[in-house]
Amino acid sequence: MSATAELRRTVADLHRELTKYELVIWTAGNVSARVPGHDLMVIKPSGVSYDELGPDAMVVTDLYGNLVEGEFAPSSDTAAHAYVYRHMPDVNGVVHTHSPYATAWAARGEPIPCVLTMIADEFGGEIPVGPFALIGDDSIGQGIVETLRNSRSKAVLMRNHGPFTVGPTAKSAVKSAVMLEDVARTVHFALQLGKASAIDQQDVDRLYERYQNVYGQ
Amino acid sequence: MSATAELRRTVADLHRELTKYELVIWTAGNVSARVPGHDLMVIKPSGVSYDELGPDAMVVTDLYGNLVEGEFAPSSDTAAHAYVYRHMPDVNGVVHTHSPYATAWAARGEPIPCVLTMIADEFGGEIPVGPFALIGDDSIGQGIVETLRNSRSKAVLMRNHGPFTVGPTAKSAVKSAVMLEDVARTVHFALQLGKASAIDQQDVDRLYERYQNVYGQ
Amino acid sequence: MSATAELRRTVADLHRELTKYELVIWTAGNVSARVPGHDLMVIKPSGVSYDELGPDAMVVTDLYGNLVEGEFAPSSDTAAHAYVYRHMPDVNGVVHTHSPYATAWAARGEPIPCVLTMIADEFGGEIPVGPFALIGDDSIGQGIVETLRNSRSKAVLMRNHGPFTVGPTAKSAVKSAVMLEDVARTVHFALQLGKASAIDQQDVDRLYERYQNVYGQ
Amino acid sequence: MSATAELRRTVADLHRELTKYELVIWTAGNVSARVPGHDLMVIKPSGVSYDELGPDAMVVTDLYGNLVEGEFAPSSDTAAHAYVYRHMPDVNGVVHTHSPYATAWAARGEPIPCVLTMIADEFGGEIPVGPFALIGDDSIGQGIVETLRNSRSKAVLMRNHGPFTVGPTAKSAVKSAVMLEDVARTVHFALQLGKASAIDQQDVDRLYERYQNVYGQ
Repeated sequence: MSATAELRRTVADLHRELTKYELVIWTAGNVSARVPGHDLMVIKPSGVSYDELGPDAMVVTDLYGNLVEGEFAPSSDTAAHAYVYRHMPDVNGVVHTHSPYATAWAARGEPIPCVLTMIADEFGGEIPVGPFALIGDDSIGQGIVETLRNSRSKAVLMRNHGPFTVGPTAKSAVKSAVMLEDVARTVHFALQLGKASAIDQQDVDRLYERYQNVYGQ
Repeated sequence: MSATAELRRTVADLHRELTKYELVIWTAGNVSARVPGHDLMVIKPSGVSYDELGPDAMVVTDLYGNLVEGEFAPSSDTAAHAYVYRHMPDVNGVVHTHSPYATAWAARGEPIPCVLTMIADEFGGEIPVGPFALIGDDSIGQGIVETLRNSRSKAVLMRNHGPFTVGPTAKSAVKSAVMLEDVARTVHFALQLGKASAIDQQDVDRLYERYQNVYGQ
Repeated sequence: MSATAELRRTVADLHRELTKYELVIWTAGNVSARVPGHDLMVIKPSGVSYDELGPDAMVVTDLYGNLVEGEFAPSSDTAAHAYVYRHMPDVNGVVHTHSPYATAWAARGEPIPCVLTMIADEFGGEIPVGPFALIGDDSIGQGIVETLRNSRSKAVLMRNHGPFTVGPTAKSAVKSAVMLEDVARTVHFALQLGKASAIDQQDVDRLYERYQNVYGQ
Repeated sequence: MSATAELRRTVADLHRELTKYELVIWTAGNVSARVPGHDLMVIKPSGVSYDELGPDAMVVTDLYGNLVEGEFAPSSDTAAHAYVYRHMPDVNGVVHTHSPYATAWAARGEPIPCVLTMIADEFGGEIPVGPFALIGDDSIGQGIVETLRNSRSKAVLMRNHGPFTVGPTAKSAVKSAVMLEDVARTVHFALQLGKASAIDQQDVDRLYERYQNVYGQ
């Protein structure tokens, strides 16, 4: 199954971006990717150190979190990733971190207002808060899907917990996780010393449109 | 004594996690481990640079802090570590840092409220404050033990001083020190711009139960 | 065209300072340099990872942003850089980042007051705010030029967006971007816990005069 | 003159601690050391990148800042270092940085209160503020010496400028610069969310006494 072999490497490599941008500590946080054309996903194993996360350590599960390939137990967040893949067919990558600034907004249950062009570019408006949900069943996955269905945002701040991001590829979801923490931090700084005015909706729309269609190669 | 040889290496290596996660500066901070089956512990020497902390630099003392093996004087915090090992038989690792966010809570004498699932997972509730105590006798050790005996927490914030963490292994105590600083920072950020609601005790209990028993391999 | 070959390397290398000082994330941010004696500039390509930004990835455009050399599309901020070169003949380097503290001041639309000798040295007074401007035409470039024309500052905080810096060389503009973030951060910290008194204008003038003429080799 | 050859290396190496602990950016900040038995000092050259600061780049001046050995112009802060060596015979090392948290206290003109055991250990009480002084004559040196003469502290926060630290060796002064920034940061964090009680003077005295005489090897 060469598709999963290559995807295991991609997902393993993407975890390094999480540590590079200091979005995760110890073994917390995880990246997954849908296996194209299969009801399968590649995900990080549970509680394994980032230093040991080579392609061989990655696990493959079905979209109900049952182990299909791999020697380790899958991430304890597997059920949430699987739920997203089952209910959002355009999503092919999911990322979960406890990155500190985004998680601080989540702890207050406060959406990040769209006061920066970078937020309009990447998230198309304010970044929404999802419900408090316990780990162990589909609660977290449901909270993610319900929140993101009503938003252009690729990021959701799960209350008292931390952010999840989604994307058309795993790399895109990782990019959103990196940019989320960056804007969560900058807006935090801005509001510590005063107020920041929101960008007009019309301008938000133009920025989002342009960035999604013109930016990059 | 091959048990201490291997443990010296383990303890030396674990100090690198303290610098990696920026929990310590210069020569401050220390990790120790109980020698299994002996009334002995391995601990960092006093005032030695982290760059020079190989296995050979580690020292072995008895559980009253008297030097048994090693060429350096033991850490100035040795008495506190030793007191913990004498009074908490299930503890086999102790870590002390002055990590900045945790120490800020300690300077205010304010426990860290349980507003994040990660706090419930790892610490089982709010992270308590211990008394102000001078170095030089058993005061610090007593303060740690008395505070942790009444708590599920593996971390205590010693007032005007800094955090100590304990665990069933030295690695586990280091993990708690890393996670403590992470949550101390995130809750600090959260409260800078508003309030964060505490997680219900029942949910805290479920999260703690699950994380202690299900997470990892 | 050996002038652009060398300048491509210089500009590529300078991008590493942006990541070293954590002024940029992912593919955001860009450095450009005017090609001496030509109506041309060297600039970063759009949306290319910092790890892949060797000299060959750099692109050359004319001063209206039209591609002259290179295999990639130029930075989406090319129009702003080009406008600056057309209207400020002494400027030979331009840098744009979303460095977090400077961008926080930009989000509030608040100039950075001259309360540090380092601000007087490098920027000659308070660091001004430029207008909100959409990407896609000359609006951003106009905002930069109009703001900097009335100031000794080599940095402008574009509202709800982020900073641009200019200089007689690309290296000088990068230095200003680094120092801008440093002072934006320090003044942020200062004002979080009270007030900081501005340095007298006469002293600002002396510091600026000296630093511009005496400092360095 | 082998004494200066060895000292050039020591001083060059110590500059790496300034970048490692992120106390300096670009070419700002400097370390000097008195040449034992001579009215000379070794100091960083002005405006040279930290990457190029090998032993050969260091310069030797007399204690009035006149160049004695070396190919570069000495640091623009040379007069301040020289004044300290002329007036404080026990000081053999001086360090100047613009480390952000310490400089924030300096911008407010507010001493750092002794609310942490680490402050009592290293600085023996609150860390004092020195006067605002312009570069270019003995004003900065005088401000440092007058402030430190009335204090056990090895650090002074020069108003609107940044910290200077002194010590019996250059390494000791660098250690104080590192610890200063650490405690400036931790106390900043503590006071952001409430109050921290000062340690009793008697306990400060005991901690200082012990740390100066018992700690280390």
